Amino acid sequence: MPSYKAPVDDTLFLLNDVLNFQQFGSLPGFADVTPDVAAQILSEAGKLCEEVLTPLNQSGDAVGCTRKPDASVAAPPGFKAAFDAYAQGGWIGLPVPEEYGGQGLPYTLTMPMSEFASSANMAFAMYPGLTQGALAALLTHGSDEQKRLYAPKMTEGRWTGTMNLTEPQCGTDLGLLTTKAVPRADGSYSITGQKIFISAGEHDLAENIIHLVLARIEGAPAGVKGISLFIVPKILVNPDGSLGARNGVACGSIEEKMGIHGNATCVMNYDGAQGFLVGEANRGLNAMFVMMNEARLGVAVQGLSQSEVAYQNAVAYARERLQGRALTGPKNPGKNADPIIVHPDIRRMLLEIRSFNEAARGLALAAALDSDIAHRSDDPAARQAAEDRLGLLTPVLKGVFTDVGFDNAVKAQQVFGGHGYIREWGMEQFVRDARIAMIYEGANGIQALDLVGRKLPRDGGRAIMAYFKDSAEFLGSLSGDEAMKPFVTPAQSALGDLQKATMWLMQNAMAKPDNAGAASYDYMHLFGRVALGLMWVRIARAAIEKKAREPDAAAWMDAKLTTARFYMERMLPETSLRLARISTGADTMMSLPEDMF
Amino acid sequence: MPSYKAPVDDTLFLLNDVLNFQQFGSLPGFADVTPDVAAQILSEAGKLCEEVLTPLNQSGDAVGCTRKPDASVAAPPGFKAAFDAYAQGGWIGLPVPEEYGGQGLPYTLTMPMSEFASSANMAFAMYPGLTQGALAALLTHGSDEQKRLYAPKMTEGRWTGTMNLTEPQCGTDLGLLTTKAVPRADGSYSITGQKIFISAGEHDLAENIIHLVLARIEGAPAGVKGISLFIVPKILVNPDGSLGARNGVACGSIEEKMGIHGNATCVMNYDGAQGFLVGEANRGLNAMFVMMNEARLGVAVQGLSQSEVAYQNAVAYARERLQGRALTGPKNPGKNADPIIVHPDIRRMLLEIRSFNEAARGLALAAALDSDIAHRSDDPAARQAAEDRLGLLTPVLKGVFTDVGFDNAVKAQQVFGGHGYIREWGMEQFVRDARIAMIYEGANGIQALDLVGRKLPRDGGRAIMAYFKDSAEFLGSLSGDEAMKPFVTPAQSALGDLQKATMWLMQNAMAKPDNAGAASYDYMHLFGRVALGLMWVRIARAAIEKKAREPDAAAWMDAKLTTARFYMERMLPETSLRLARISTGADTMMSLPEDMF
Repeated sequence: MPSYKAPVDDTLFLLNDVLNFQQFGSLPGFADVTPDVAAQILSEAGKLCEEVLTPLNQSGDAVGCTRKPDASVAAPPGFKAAFDAYAQGGWIGLPVPEEYGGQGLPYTLTMPMSEFASSANMAFAMYPGLTQGALAALLTHGSDEQKRLYAPKMTEGRWTGTMNLTEPQCGTDLGLLTTKAVPRADGSYSITGQKIFISAGEHDLAENIIHLVLARIEGAPAGVKGISLFIVPKILVNPDGSLGARNGVACGSIEEKMGIHGNATCVMNYDGAQGFLVGEANRGLNAMFVMMNEARLGVAVQGLSQSEVAYQNAVAYARERLQGRALTGPKNPGKNADPIIVHPDIRRMLLEIRSFNEAARGLALAAALDSDIAHRSDDPAARQAAEDRLGLLTPVLKGVFTDVGFDNAVKAQQVFGGHGYIREWGMEQFVRDARIAMIYEGANGIQALDLVGRKLPRDGGRAIMAYFKDSAEFLGSLSGDEAMKPFVTPAQSALGDLQKATMWLMQNAMAKPDNAGAASYDYMHLFGRVALGLMWVRIARAAIEKKAREPDAAAWMDAKLTTARFYMERMLPETSLRLARISTGADTMMSLPEDMF
Repeated sequence: MPSYKAPVDDTLFLLNDVLNFQQFGSLPGFADVTPDVAAQILSEAGKLCEEVLTPLNQSGDAVGCTRKPDASVAAPPGFKAAFDAYAQGGWIGLPVPEEYGGQGLPYTLTMPMSEFASSANMAFAMYPGLTQGALAALLTHGSDEQKRLYAPKMTEGRWTGTMNLTEPQCGTDLGLLTTKAVPRADGSYSITGQKIFISAGEHDLAENIIHLVLARIEGAPAGVKGISLFIVPKILVNPDGSLGARNGVACGSIEEKMGIHGNATCVMNYDGAQGFLVGEANRGLNAMFVMMNEARLGVAVQGLSQSEVAYQNAVAYARERLQGRALTGPKNPGKNADPIIVHPDIRRMLLEIRSFNEAARGLALAAALDSDIAHRSDDPAARQAAEDRLGLLTPVLKGVFTDVGFDNAVKAQQVFGGHGYIREWGMEQFVRDARIAMIYEGANGIQALDLVGRKLPRDGGRAIMAYFKDSAEFLGSLSGDEAMKPFVTPAQSALGDLQKATMWLMQNAMAKPDNAGAASYDYMHLFGRVALGLMWVRIARAAIEKKAREPDAAAWMDAKLTTARFYMERMLPETSLRLARISTGADTMMSLPEDMF
């Protein structure tokens, strides 16, 4: 059975030494989080994930979810008790304001728990994760009454949440959605339609499920401008918060999927279900975007999470498996073979994964910190800068972390040879589970289009220009530091590639939009490589400082510097390939007639 | 349910127009294969695969193989009838000499059938595929008596074959194997030990199973120099060819795997089973290599096969799925959305796959042709040149086709969005099935080491030097052709990268073997990209000529030229990234202490 150890120390190093978490003490909720408190929280989080969630991962995959004849759904054995433990630990409500029963702690501290829980059991982690996303949307766009009625129970984990967007004929293109909302005399709506691919749509972990549903009010404009957001509880809620009648919504079936079998992916049938408008009519997409943006970061972290747990198990296997001899002669002369970790190609695979994991974790935490700044800072300039960065980087993180996370799970599986293909070793489950993250919350091609088509041009390119300026200044500030040169020089070159690609887009995409589409996916990956590279520069600088300050940490910090060098040598050069591909434009791919494919 | 159409026309174009198959008419077995005969054979092959094997692919995956309490194994429903049809069509014996009941046709014609059958049903195709591999080993290294006794029944498909190498403690490193062979008084051996991961190890498709088993004769030297090859029939065969007593070999269990569920992957327990030595004692690895080399090409083609069938289904979906609008304005104004094939990023994914498939098919056929020349030509120089090319390219094709084939199956799945993750669409099965090809018959990292450590230096580098010379001459001969310039120029540059990488290896690997290991995987992929690029040059030249000769083929040939341009613009530039990675050497990855991973 695969094992998992939450990377608590690495997360604390990133928070304390790289991101200087303590310097944000003036933000609401941050003041109480001293390094000791952060360490305690993360170590509790890790413990729950290691001891409660990890042991249920393989069995959850094997047993999956079961829909019963009465349309109820049973989550895999053990999930209910684990969910109770998760909820009672206060983990769902960690970032929720205290007035709704939460702890009002930074979102930055929620991020590690999302990673740990997903590494331990991705299918499980989606239940609280979606609840947190639904909560965020409700707290931002719901009325006071709606917040009062729904938020505390969701914070407690007595109720869970879902997001209902997709329909059979409409996924990416939400303008095509046809689920109907007919006004009722009491001000609520009658919702009718079919939603598909609804994660955690039905289960037995909670007393109630609060569905957030996109639908079209009768007579609303066509397209995305006629979509509204509704709360549709599985069981209607009385004004005093007690449960009332069963609502007209039911799980029609569970999808048979490649992975995440422990999470019920439901077809949800709405048959005149009572729904309650959230925010303004016809502005539903806007409200749902709060949930989607948070979910996109959550999905990005799923990519990291599978990469991390797959890495840990591949390292353990590579240390134990005796096969062949080192190219430089036996390293294990007492035995009849060396552990395969002596082989350069095994180390290549492991370091490719590791050099992603540690920087990706840094970027995820930095994004969470930006989210906290954007929501909590009283400095409008800081808020805007953080929001710009977050908007720019969210599609990059979602697209790149999930693509690379999947590739890394495949690489880690490869370390196991034939055993990687066998169920009992658990590696193939990481691959199957990781695969969904490239697809849902907007397939990665859509993330790339969002980046190139919306995030780059927004506000006259303010976000990307700030990104270039900040990055250049940061690298420039280190240019006199000889020890930093092996990191700063390649990062500067890669940043140059990103600037050239951005320039190419400005010059070629306006007149010919297909050039933007043709470049988008490579541009997203180019951006991702650069962002990871810049994070490695930050990590390297922190490592050099920490090593000087804390001799006990020298071996650990040297490992960071070696991994950073590996990234610079082997991973970052990809930026010039991406630039070359982008520069070829759209003509060739658009010139093949549709019927000749 | 996914569909499949065998690429008969494309294969014939490659055989007739690109590889000039007809010019090899003087080789034994080739004379009768006129273009009409080839077309007829391939079209029959395609029909069987489309009509009989494809419909069993999803059900075979869902039902899998079942081991019964008596240790017998049932293949999925329908497989027995399909296997009978395959055998009765003469497909197993296609390349087998007529004296053993085969058709004595070129191996070059077996290759397309292997591809078609694997595309249609990879798990199924392994049963006849392994039988062909075992036959090839027997025909090369077996005694006349062994050939007489076993080959005709295997050719007929009444008996099947397996290869038994792996043991729990030994996969890549066969020197560690412990299965014992004790001489019996009658000259046969008593075989005892456990083999794992034995594909098609037990099933109900045939009357008997001929296991080829590596074992160590008592007292033999340690390591690979003490390994011998044995025939161990499931049911002993009487001298008159009739079946005798059950032998002491049984399936202990079936592995639960990520994919290829229709093929029984068995733990095989040998308990004093009677075995018959093949070839010389202690030279078993040598004999098994015949089977392994053939199997490696077969596995390479599995990568192509999954890429092809996944591509076909992705194209069909991209034409049908209406979602969003073209960036340049509606292309489908009568409907409320355009088919997603209008989007550049969808086309990018499809062309990345397609630009691999067509050139990979050309390389697989060229390798098969080399195998025919190496085995059948009466010109020693031609035989040696073909053998050199084949030896050099076999690990490249195995490693690159299966890596890229898997990536392509993942890309094709991505085109389906959420539906790609759902079982019923069949795309996720292609991904799961394709995954094994990167692992078995030598994990791809081992292919890379075989290439760099054995194939490059062999005979003083004769094979690689001939490859460079032939390729440079070929490109040089086209340098005056303006129409060929968009293909020749990038191919020359990529070939230069391969030459530089080879030079780097010569200069840096001798003194420091870890540099070879650290470079091997990138070198293999660099080689693969170049080989595919050179094949595209050949295809482009043939397309230009055919277009001039046959105006009816113009649209088809233009599609070839567009795909070739796409490859040159978007895929081939990867060679410089691979070169850059190779040139960084092994120092960084070797310097991380084992306990710091």
